[in-house]
Amino acid sequence: MSYQAPLRDMRFVLHELFDAAGHCERLGNGLDRELIDGVLEEAAVFAAGEVAPLNRNSDEEGCHLENGQVSTPKGFAEAYRQYVDNGWASMTGPVEHGGQGFPQLVAFAFHEMLMGASLSFRVYSGLTEGAVLALHKHGSETLKQQYLGKLVSGQWTGTMCLTEPQAGTDLALLRTRAEPQADGSYRVSGSKIFISGGEQDISENIVHLVLARLPDAPAGVKGISLLLVPKFIAAADGTPGERNTLSCGAIEHKMGIKGASTCVMNFDGATGWLVGEANQGLACMFTMMNDARFQVGLQGLGIGEAAFQGALRYARERLQSRGLAGVQAPDKAADPIIVHPDVRRMLLTQKALVEGSRMLAAYTARQLDLVHGAESAEARKAAGKRAALLIPIVKAFFTDMGQEVASHGVQVYGGHGFIREWGMEQLMRDSRITQLYEGTNGIQALDYIRRKLLGDGGAELSALQAEFSQLCDAEADRRALAQMASVVQARLGEWRELSTEVIAACQRDPQEIGATSVDFLQYSAYVLLAGFWLQAAARAQDALEAGSGEAAFYQAKLHSAEFYLRRVLPRASAHREALLGGAQCLMAMDEDSFAF
Amino acid sequence: MSYQAPLRDMRFVLHELFDAAGHCERLGNGLDRELIDGVLEEAAVFAAGEVAPLNRNSDEEGCHLENGQVSTPKGFAEAYRQYVDNGWASMTGPVEHGGQGFPQLVAFAFHEMLMGASLSFRVYSGLTEGAVLALHKHGSETLKQQYLGKLVSGQWTGTMCLTEPQAGTDLALLRTRAEPQADGSYRVSGSKIFISGGEQDISENIVHLVLARLPDAPAGVKGISLLLVPKFIAAADGTPGERNTLSCGAIEHKMGIKGASTCVMNFDGATGWLVGEANQGLACMFTMMNDARFQVGLQGLGIGEAAFQGALRYARERLQSRGLAGVQAPDKAADPIIVHPDVRRMLLTQKALVEGSRMLAAYTARQLDLVHGAESAEARKAAGKRAALLIPIVKAFFTDMGQEVASHGVQVYGGHGFIREWGMEQLMRDSRITQLYEGTNGIQALDYIRRKLLGDGGAELSALQAEFSQLCDAEADRRALAQMASVVQARLGEWRELSTEVIAACQRDPQEIGATSVDFLQYSAYVLLAGFWLQAAARAQDALEAGSGEAAFYQAKLHSAEFYLRRVLPRASAHREALLGGAQCLMAMDEDSFAF
Repeated sequence: MSYQAPLRDMRFVLHELFDAAGHCERLGNGLDRELIDGVLEEAAVFAAGEVAPLNRNSDEEGCHLENGQVSTPKGFAEAYRQYVDNGWASMTGPVEHGGQGFPQLVAFAFHEMLMGASLSFRVYSGLTEGAVLALHKHGSETLKQQYLGKLVSGQWTGTMCLTEPQAGTDLALLRTRAEPQADGSYRVSGSKIFISGGEQDISENIVHLVLARLPDAPAGVKGISLLLVPKFIAAADGTPGERNTLSCGAIEHKMGIKGASTCVMNFDGATGWLVGEANQGLACMFTMMNDARFQVGLQGLGIGEAAFQGALRYARERLQSRGLAGVQAPDKAADPIIVHPDVRRMLLTQKALVEGSRMLAAYTARQLDLVHGAESAEARKAAGKRAALLIPIVKAFFTDMGQEVASHGVQVYGGHGFIREWGMEQLMRDSRITQLYEGTNGIQALDYIRRKLLGDGGAELSALQAEFSQLCDAEADRRALAQMASVVQARLGEWRELSTEVIAACQRDPQEIGATSVDFLQYSAYVLLAGFWLQAAARAQDALEAGSGEAAFYQAKLHSAEFYLRRVLPRASAHREALLGGAQCLMAMDEDSFAF
Repeated sequence: MSYQAPLRDMRFVLHELFDAAGHCERLGNGLDRELIDGVLEEAAVFAAGEVAPLNRNSDEEGCHLENGQVSTPKGFAEAYRQYVDNGWASMTGPVEHGGQGFPQLVAFAFHEMLMGASLSFRVYSGLTEGAVLALHKHGSETLKQQYLGKLVSGQWTGTMCLTEPQAGTDLALLRTRAEPQADGSYRVSGSKIFISGGEQDISENIVHLVLARLPDAPAGVKGISLLLVPKFIAAADGTPGERNTLSCGAIEHKMGIKGASTCVMNFDGATGWLVGEANQGLACMFTMMNDARFQVGLQGLGIGEAAFQGALRYARERLQSRGLAGVQAPDKAADPIIVHPDVRRMLLTQKALVEGSRMLAAYTARQLDLVHGAESAEARKAAGKRAALLIPIVKAFFTDMGQEVASHGVQVYGGHGFIREWGMEQLMRDSRITQLYEGTNGIQALDYIRRKLLGDGGAELSALQAEFSQLCDAEADRRALAQMASVVQARLGEWRELSTEVIAACQRDPQEIGATSVDFLQYSAYVLLAGFWLQAAARAQDALEAGSGEAAFYQAKLHSAEFYLRRVLPRASAHREALLGGAQCLMAMDEDSFAF
C-alpha cells in the first residue's frame, strides 16, 4: 500500500472553496497561499516517504511489553524523531510555548495525511496535541513552565487517562483517587484502561492527564478532577527527573492499530498535580474534546482516502472479464475491472464520500480557528456554536464513512482484499476503532441531538440550513447547475421539516432522543455533503467557464457531484423514514424477550 | 464467546412457518417432528459443546505450514473426528453412498449452528459436501466407488480448485493443464490459489476437484474440464494409497477464518481423472454452485446469530449511564445499557435481520429439496427456478447482513469490541470473507439481474411477488395485522413496478445491468424479508389467539416484525432511489479522472 497525499483536492478545498489565504490573513498568522502549498507539499513527502512505509509492518509486528517497557514497531521511534526534529509536532502548538500556531484549516490537511499514511503512528502525536490544549488553558504557570514546551515540541508525549474497567461512556463511575499532599501535589492511585501511548519507546517522557476523585469529592461527574501525572517528574533543568510510581500493567491485543500501544496503566500513589480547579476535571476535558473528536473524524477521512487510492490502483490494473457493453481492451486478456459499472459504483462512492467529507472537514476546521481567532466576540461565539454543532457529525459520520470506504476497498480487491499483504483489510481493522473511541458514534449522535439540537431549540441548525439554502439560491439560475441546486434545495427543505419533527418528538418523549439520534445525524450529514458538493460543482463550473487549463479536473468534480446526488444522497431517505418509525417499536420489547 | 443454537426460533421457522414434518413426509425420508427436534437438539449440543470452544483459540493459533504439512489449530482434528464418528458429516449425503439424506430444510439449521460456532471449522466440511454433489452427479462409476463413500462419511475431505492468480471471477483465463494418459488418467499441472482446506491434518485424504484445460480445449470457458485429483490415490482396498504429485506451496495470511487453511496448491503432473465430459467443467461446477452459495449465505446467518447473542449478553450485563426516561435499576451503580434506545436499535436490527434471514433460508432450503424431491417434473422444475432466483440473494444479502450484524456487535461492546479476547471483532473479521468468496457479492447481484431476472423477462420474480401479495391479502382483514399487511403490500406493488423499470433499463443499456444490480438485489431482499416478517407475525397472532402458553415468545415476534417494518424496511427506499439514479453517472467519468 503506497499512499500519496491528495494534494490537488486539498488545494481545491483550501483555496477554491474556503479561501485559506484570506482566512490566514484575517487570523494574522503570516501564512500566504505559497507558504501553505509549500508546507503541504513537504508534509506530503513526509507522510508518503517516512510514515506510510512503516504501516504494513507495524501491523504485523505490533507492540510488545517486556519488563514494564513497551517497544513500538520498527521505524516508529526514528520516524517520530524526524517528526519532532522537522517541526511537524509543533505545527498547531501555541506560539508563546514554541509552537507554530498553524490554523486548523491548514493543519487538518497534514493531519489527514498522517492518518492515511499510518493511523497507528498518528495516535501517539494526536493525543499529545490534546494534552497541550488542556494544559495551555487550565494548567498552572509552574506546570506550564515545566511541561508545556516539551509537549508542544513533541519531545515529550501526552496521554488521556479517562477509562476504567467499569467506567467508559459513564465517567461518573470512575474510582481512581488523588490524595492531597502537604506540598500541594497529589498521590494518584487507580487503574486506567485503553490508554493509547500509555507506555512506549518513542519519547523520553510521557505526561499523563488523569481523571480522578479527591477524597471529599461529590459523587458522580461533579466530583472528578484532572491531574497531570508524568512518567518522569520534570527536573529543575527541564530534563526527565525522578521516575514516578506508575507502570504499564498490560497492553491490549486488538483488532487493528496494532502499532499503537494500548495500555493498562496502574498508578500506585503516583505524584501528580491538579490541572484546573478541583472537581472541574470534566470541564477541563471539554476543552480538548472538540479538537480530539475532530481529529478522530480526520482518521476516518484519512483511512478513507488511503482505501480509495488502493482500490483505484487495483481496479485499473486487475484484468478480469469483459465490459457489459463489449470488449474495452482488445489487446489484453481481459478488461481492467474499472470498466464494470459496479466497480465504478464502489470507487465513486469512495471518492464522493471522501472528497465530500474533506469539504466538511475544512468548513469545520475554519470554524475551530474562528472560535479563538475571529475579531469580534460575537463572531467567536458564533463560530463556537457552529463548531459544536458540527463536531459530533464529523466524528461519527467520517468514521462510519471510513469503515464503509475501507470495506469497499476490500471488496474491489475480491479475494485478495482478505489477504494481509495487500493492505486493504488492515485499513478496515485500523479504522474500526474510530467508531468506538473518543465517545462511541452513538454517544456522538446523542450529543448532537441532546446538547446541540435540543440545547438551543434548533436555532443553530436552522442558521446552518439557511446558509446552505442561500448557496442553493445563488446557483439556481445557472443552467448547468439548476438541476443540482433544486435537488439540494429540496433536501434542505425536507431537513428543516424533519428537524422540527425531531425536536417535537424528543420534547414529547425523552426516549425519542436516543431513538432518532443516529439516523438524524446520518441524515444531516448526507444532506450537508450534498450542500458541499453543490458548492464544489459551482466552483468547478466557474473554472470551466473561465477556460481553466485543468478542464479534466473540474469536469471530474462535476461528475462526482452528479454521482453523489443521484446515488449516495438517496440514503438520506432511508434514515428519514427509519427515524420517523419512532421510539415505541424500540422500547416495547421486554428485556427478557430479546433472548427468544 | 459462548454460542447457543437458537433452537426455539429454529423450531418456529421449521414447524410453524414451513411445516417441516409435512415436507419430510412428502419427501418420504422418514423424519417426523420429534425426530427433527431431537436431531437439532443433539446438533446444538455438538455445536456449542465441541465446536464453539475451539473458535477463539483457532483465531490466535491459526494454521501453520512446515515441510509441506499444514497443522490446524488445537482441537480441530479431534472435533472433526467426532464430527465424522457421530455421523454429522454424512447428514445430507446420498443414502446409496452411506449418507443420511437429510433434507436441506432440516440440515440448514445444523449448518447454521456450525457457522455460528466456528466458521473456520465449518469450512473444511462445507466444501466436502460440494465435492460430494459434483462427484455424485457427474463422476464415473469407478470414481464414485473409489472416492464417494469416503467423502460422504467425511473420512476424506474435498476441495474446489478453481482460482488462479490471474483467474478469479473470470475463469476463462485459467491456465492449469491436464494431459491425457494412455490409461485414461490425466496429468494435471498448474498452480491454484485460495484453496480452502487444500492441505490440513484433520482427514486422512484430500480429494481435489480441479478445473483445468485439456490440450485441444477451445479458448475461454468452453474449454474447461473438471478433474478429480486426490492427495493419495485410492488403493484397491479403499485406503489412501500412492502419494500424488501435488503439494501445498504456501498458506495465506488472512484477515479472518485463521483456523481454516487457505492454500496455494501446486499440481506437478499430478494424476487425475475426468469428472463429467471433457470441456464441460463449468457445467459440472454449476451443479454444486447453488449448494455452495447457499452454504456461504448460511455463514452470514450463523455469524450474525453469534454476534447478536454476544451483544445481547453484554448489553444486559454492562452497567453504564442512566436511562433517558430516568433510573431503571436503582439498586445498581448504573443501568444496563439495554435500557438505551440506541443500544436497543442495534440489538433489534441484529435480531430482525437474523431471524428474517432465517425464514428466507428455510424457504430457500425447502425449494432446494423440491428440486430433487418434488413428485412431479413440473414441481421440480418450478422449485429449481425459484431456488435459482433466490440463491444469489441469500448469498449476497446474508453475508452483507452478517458483516453488518457483527459490526453492531462490536459497537454494542464499545471499546471492548475492539479487543480480541472478547471475541466480537473476530466475528467481523471472519465474516468479511463471506462477501468475497464463492463469487463476490457484486457477482451475485449480476447473476440475479442478468441470468435470473432478464433470463426469463421477470416471469419467475413476478410469480414470487404474486405469492407474497396473496399472503398479504390473506392477513389484510385481521385487525391486528392489517396495518402491517398494508405496508408490505405497498412495498410489493413498488417492487413490481421497479422490476419492470429495471428490466426496461437493462434492455435499453447493458451498463444498467451492472449499475442497478447491487441496489436491486438489496431492495429485493429487504422487501422479501418484510413478507416473511408478516408471515411470522401472522403465525404469532394465531398462537396468541389460540391462547398459547408461550405468549411472551409470540409477543416478541410481533414486536420484531413491527420493528423491522418501521425501522429496517425503509432502507429499501434508499436502494430504490439510488438505482433509479442510473448508469450514466457511473460511466461518465473518464478512467484517468478518478485519480484527481
